[in-house]
Amino acid sequence: MASHQTACGIITLLTDFGTSDGYVAAMKGTALTLSSALRVIDITHEVPSQDIFRAALILKQVAQTFPKGTVHVVVVDPGVGTHRLPIAVESADQYFVGPDNGVLTLAATPPRQAYQLTNSDLMRAKLSDTFHGRDIFAPVGARLACDTSIEEVGPALDTIAEIPLPTPTLGQGTIVGEVIYADRYGNLMINVTEDLLRKLDPASIRITISGITIEGLRSTYGDVKRGELVAYVGSTGYLEVARREGNARHYLGAPRGAQVILNHG
Amino acid sequence: MASHQTACGIITLLTDFGTSDGYVAAMKGTALTLSSALRVIDITHEVPSQDIFRAALILKQVAQTFPKGTVHVVVVDPGVGTHRLPIAVESADQYFVGPDNGVLTLAATPPRQAYQLTNSDLMRAKLSDTFHGRDIFAPVGARLACDTSIEEVGPALDTIAEIPLPTPTLGQGTIVGEVIYADRYGNLMINVTEDLLRKLDPASIRITISGITIEGLRSTYGDVKRGELVAYVGSTGYLEVARREGNARHYLGAPRGAQVILNHG
Amino acid sequence: MASHQTACGIITLLTDFGTSDGYVAAMKGTALTLSSALRVIDITHEVPSQDIFRAALILKQVAQTFPKGTVHVVVVDPGVGTHRLPIAVESADQYFVGPDNGVLTLAATPPRQAYQLTNSDLMRAKLSDTFHGRDIFAPVGARLACDTSIEEVGPALDTIAEIPLPTPTLGQGTIVGEVIYADRYGNLMINVTEDLLRKLDPASIRITISGITIEGLRSTYGDVKRGELVAYVGSTGYLEVARREGNARHYLGAPRGAQVILNHG
Repeated sequence: MASHQTACGIITLLTDFGTSDGYVAAMKGTALTLSSALRVIDITHEVPSQDIFRAALILKQVAQTFPKGTVHVVVVDPGVGTHRLPIAVESADQYFVGPDNGVLTLAATPPRQAYQLTNSDLMRAKLSDTFHGRDIFAPVGARLACDTSIEEVGPALDTIAEIPLPTPTLGQGTIVGEVIYADRYGNLMINVTEDLLRKLDPASIRITISGITIEGLRSTYGDVKRGELVAYVGSTGYLEVARREGNARHYLGAPRGAQVILNHG
Repeated sequence: MASHQTACGIITLLTDFGTSDGYVAAMKGTALTLSSALRVIDITHEVPSQDIFRAALILKQVAQTFPKGTVHVVVVDPGVGTHRLPIAVESADQYFVGPDNGVLTLAATPPRQAYQLTNSDLMRAKLSDTFHGRDIFAPVGARLACDTSIEEVGPALDTIAEIPLPTPTLGQGTIVGEVIYADRYGNLMINVTEDLLRKLDPASIRITISGITIEGLRSTYGDVKRGELVAYVGSTGYLEVARREGNARHYLGAPRGAQVILNHG
Repeated sequence: MASHQTACGIITLLTDFGTSDGYVAAMKGTALTLSSALRVIDITHEVPSQDIFRAALILKQVAQTFPKGTVHVVVVDPGVGTHRLPIAVESADQYFVGPDNGVLTLAATPPRQAYQLTNSDLMRAKLSDTFHGRDIFAPVGARLACDTSIEEVGPALDTIAEIPLPTPTLGQGTIVGEVIYADRYGNLMINVTEDLLRKLDPASIRITISGITIEGLRSTYGDVKRGELVAYVGSTGYLEVARREGNARHYLGAPRGAQVILNHG
């Protein structure tokens, strides 16, 4: 790995490493050794250990806020040291680098082009079997952000592993979805988009989770009283359910995968 | 929002969002899309949810360590989606952007000039009702740090909401103050400044909290034995009480607002 | 302290301050006031309070991933306000700034040259007795990364305080080491290097901790079944013991200092 001082773009880091050890810093140091002009931005390192789906959904929520050309390096990788491939993906003028376990695919939507990382010139000279974040993903990401085109990382791949979002079920005046994410406040995100919600009459919509029914869509928390449940289209375009100044996840006992029934009239 | 590559300054971020979701990263991505040359520095994201006073005091402690021209973006905002105004404030050659709920006012001291954020050209094209950090405060902050003067954000405001520090009560050879902050070590900050302390005789000062009296002011923890309480002027100019290699807050059972009596002689 | 806008390098920050107060941000602000072109990278701020050995080991693991010329500022400093010296050390084309309590010495290996920080022109104008991170270490680090040679910080020191790694004991076909670090996953690092391991027959090596024996060295977690213990050379060149998809530290009840017996045949 040679050092370069050319103009560089941005890489983001998204891992389940936490921040109490030196792992994230080792990725940053390795990337900055390739170019100290690189910008390194943390998405989060607090993904629960090996929770690929949650990491994929955070990446989807955040990636498109970054500039074109940004390289997102994601290391949530239960398969480190096994035969899963290391890959890079180009989609919508951004780049995604990580293991081929689906963690990139909610953000790196089609049309996209994936490549296997095989070019060892772009990697750390000595590869460990347990820390591909430092040895493969961070340096390849840094090179993509600085001076390397994605075709140079290795051969194109026809298919990569996918983690699809669960699909809601549509009936007559009914949508059956599920909880896909809960944030630190206990606000619940549901796999029903703003577009899909338009199939129901907003004036008379009813949303039922854990046997409790919320009447109507609102704009924001402030539209209900303290302690009340409120449903609204969240900041990333999905239906969300919150409890004003409370925790909807705990109140409803609704974990990821909990069924959500929408109907109207 | 157009992209700009001109020279940019620094924005800081101070929120109660935590770092386990993608919210902070979405603010950074949005800001960097306006200019990838922007420097983004975290103050903290671990303010307890909606604790405006604590956020205001952290900002006061930290803001003036940053260079002139720095833009501090603060999102501790129980009123998101209600009618509180989004504002920007100029004070002492720095800029402060956030909700008009007082969170900016301990740091942005008079003389200052405040403006309402109304210029939608400086904001995200589509505004959500629940994430003004991403849609209003981060992009306006980024523009202020790069290429926009504060007069362009919207009309000047005559008054903004204040959160004053509680004022100590002065008597004959007595000051009655209160605990205003406890840090992660349990060190207590008291609303009595170094200047005010000079009204008492340092040689014979007595500080009483929770019925326990500390004799004399010291310079630092090392001036007492392990486990002992020590009072000193802290690094931000306020009286502090600590327990050497211990936790004064737990030991004294003294939460924010606890009374502190100083006298002498 | 004057402001400089010349080209600057990188400083890293490693402390036990946590990130919920404003202390780390005050260090960053002070450093950036010296040069807003400075790059500031966090190693970690979650070192357990005053755990000098753990901080020293994290620094050792991470420092050499950073580019030449990087300045590592370390503030794990039980002795702030006492007579321990503030120092800067040059080693292997990197710089280390912090208290003279040994925290720098596992990373700043000989040959090295240490200096006492006495040049007050490089420090904050008003020094507190309790926050040398903001007032001494961050500004001196920023100056070293920008425009100041290490000889300018103060007089050279012949000796500095050391925290040595514990040394393993070598016998006939036996090595007795100990646990020196456990990461957030509960993976255990042992004070036996890859080089030392070569003294034993890798085919028949046995590693005993807490009365439980692991047979053989593997490459990575994937080489054993879920819930099994696995021994391997870790990413920093030390023997490690992990439990696949589990926590070896909890499973083995093996804290730092726990004895590890290696033999073979």
